[in-house]
Amino acid sequence: MAHRIAVIAGDGIGTEVMPEGLRALKAAAKRFAIDLDIQTFAFGSCDYYLEHGKMLPDDWFDQLKDFDALFYGAVGWPAKVPDHISLWGSLLQFRRRFDQYINLRPCKLMPGIQSPLAGREPGDIDFYVVRENTEGEYSSVGGKMFEGTDREVVIQETVMTRTGVDRVLKYAFDLAQTRSRKKLTSATKSNGISITMPYWDERVEAMAEAYPEVSVDKFHIDILTANFVLHPDWFDVVVGSNLFGDILSDLGPACTGTIGIAPSANINPEGKFPSLFEPVHGSAPDIAGKGIANPIGQIWSGAMMLEHLGHQEAANALVEAIEAVLAEGSPNVLTPDLRGQGNTASLGRAIAERI
Amino acid sequence: MAHRIAVIAGDGIGTEVMPEGLRALKAAAKRFAIDLDIQTFAFGSCDYYLEHGKMLPDDWFDQLKDFDALFYGAVGWPAKVPDHISLWGSLLQFRRRFDQYINLRPCKLMPGIQSPLAGREPGDIDFYVVRENTEGEYSSVGGKMFEGTDREVVIQETVMTRTGVDRVLKYAFDLAQTRSRKKLTSATKSNGISITMPYWDERVEAMAEAYPEVSVDKFHIDILTANFVLHPDWFDVVVGSNLFGDILSDLGPACTGTIGIAPSANINPEGKFPSLFEPVHGSAPDIAGKGIANPIGQIWSGAMMLEHLGHQEAANALVEAIEAVLAEGSPNVLTPDLRGQGNTASLGRAIAERI
Ligand SMILES: CC(C)[C@H](C(=O)O)[C@@H](O)C(=O)O
Ligand SMILES: CC(C)[C@H](C(=O)O)[C@@H](O)C(=O)O
Repeated sequence: MAHRIAVIAGDGIGTEVMPEGLRALKAAAKRFAIDLDIQTFAFGSCDYYLEHGKMLPDDWFDQLKDFDALFYGAVGWPAKVPDHISLWGSLLQFRRRFDQYINLRPCKLMPGIQSPLAGREPGDIDFYVVRENTEGEYSSVGGKMFEGTDREVVIQETVMTRTGVDRVLKYAFDLAQTRSRKKLTSATKSNGISITMPYWDERVEAMAEAYPEVSVDKFHIDILTANFVLHPDWFDVVVGSNLFGDILSDLGPACTGTIGIAPSANINPEGKFPSLFEPVHGSAPDIAGKGIANPIGQIWSGAMMLEHLGHQEAANALVEAIEAVLAEGSPNVLTPDLRGQGNTASLGRAIAERI
Repeated sequence: MAHRIAVIAGDGIGTEVMPEGLRALKAAAKRFAIDLDIQTFAFGSCDYYLEHGKMLPDDWFDQLKDFDALFYGAVGWPAKVPDHISLWGSLLQFRRRFDQYINLRPCKLMPGIQSPLAGREPGDIDFYVVRENTEGEYSSVGGKMFEGTDREVVIQETVMTRTGVDRVLKYAFDLAQTRSRKKLTSATKSNGISITMPYWDERVEAMAEAYPEVSVDKFHIDILTANFVLHPDWFDVVVGSNLFGDILSDLGPACTGTIGIAPSANINPEGKFPSLFEPVHGSAPDIAGKGIANPIGQIWSGAMMLEHLGHQEAANALVEAIEAVLAEGSPNVLTPDLRGQGNTASLGRAIAERI
């Protein structure tokens, strides 16, 4: 049976890298005889907002809910629409309404990519950040008092639920269990954030009992970010709350030099709703329209999507194609961010041809 | 008139680095004819807690409030006392009750110190993190519902006030104004944390109007941590909320390789209450008792204290003494963390002799 894929390119370079993401995806589908039914949607972009006064049509949920996956580019263009409107009106809606409670991002040194860390080689750094993706610090609950006066007080609540915390921890432990090092690191700040974070720690300890083979440690977020820089080889699977996971899943790819090419998956593990796959990078208004955006994040996200849909071999082939093209390092093929003279299309095509 | 300094060594290596901090301080006081009246207190440590059932005596506030500064070692020893008790019962009490609303930490590449970042030289990285130190995410307001059941909900409030936000921003802008680059970077997350963080941004914009010479930018905390690794040379003065400042002021020194030797100041700028000076490192139970802890963080904190007390020249002399000993790099003098065979005393003495 065909996998139904909804494509939303979004804004800025999202619209430029998406065609290359699809090119690679189709190449993999062809080689591995995977049946993909791909449908493209124009909503979920700032231009859509400017025309319709909203980021999504009223029936977006019904339009999308029966897809197997959403393949997303990037959203946001602050000069057109304020971020909190464009993001809360699209991406963050999908994550919540489709209960994509896992945000998963690989942090991996890739061949041919210069890491900003001294003396690290491919193979040295290879871990996942698992982020809670629906609750916690991104609550939108709170408000203001004495507004506009010197006595102004502004409050926002962090909300954690047993359900919300346990299910992301379970996913992270399950993932750690499948890895050779079987190591889980939890991000906390229970020494400073004295209610929610000790609770998080408590649930980690409770969950750990069900996974005797997984070795568990925890760090406060401040020193954990330091250790991403100082000892990135320590990590295998790192799990954090919505905010901490957000930070770590940008910092991790920064440490591997892959922030511009890293993929991410927003997963509803039960498959009740579609999961969403998007590059870590944003819409990059500054380079949009030039055709020079690096499409690897989009292509690599496609690999995560194939893996999620059960096609591990095809996913591997995609990642290997990316690695091969990076290792080869042809200046005519690579985009300017990789010190090449190529463009989005040349790099995308080179990868698709390798599959 | 003598400056009254209260000394609290605290736990673990705090008690080992403090004598060297004092040795250097006294050397500087002697050379620059500064009159210091130093008094030592035994409370504020986990051992005190084990004996008295509390971290501080009931009248600690009155005992300490008339000092000009507190010189602190490190607190915490989780095997003796849970962190949230030891920290909230001492350090965090001081910060709040003495209204030390500024936490200030330099991030500076030092000679002879290996930065984990590739290709960076002393001079390339030299900025300050200014952290709000009394409110925000460290609120201790919140609670649990449906405790112990599957429906458990745990809530913690982030509380920002106009007073609290404006005064830390003012301090940061004032600091930026004194620097040659006059650049201020604000840490935000207004695209995800939709109430308090847009408020923070709003106050930054309002404050910026009073400082036309200061150039201002802002980054979301996720990409900001990435930029600490990728472009540490971009930063001059970075200001953040309690949590964001906490993270950045560990990550910054990690990027400069100085996490083990960085100092910090907890400042009440009006001088209504004593300010507190402490190394960034903790009590390090794992190496405590061996006499090998690096005392530079304590000594450098002493330099920040002298600066705060108005002795800029003496402060500079202290920092220059540290830099000279590091640049010399004598293995017999340096502690093991710097790949030397020396110890706390040898390194402390070498620095004191240079002053
Ligand atoms: C020990 C802890 C509560 C403290 C904090 O988070 O403020 C520490 O990390 C610091 O930065 O001084
Ligand atoms: C755009 C923003 C709201 C989002 C987030 O913080 O979740 C982004 O940083 C991400 O990590 O996908």
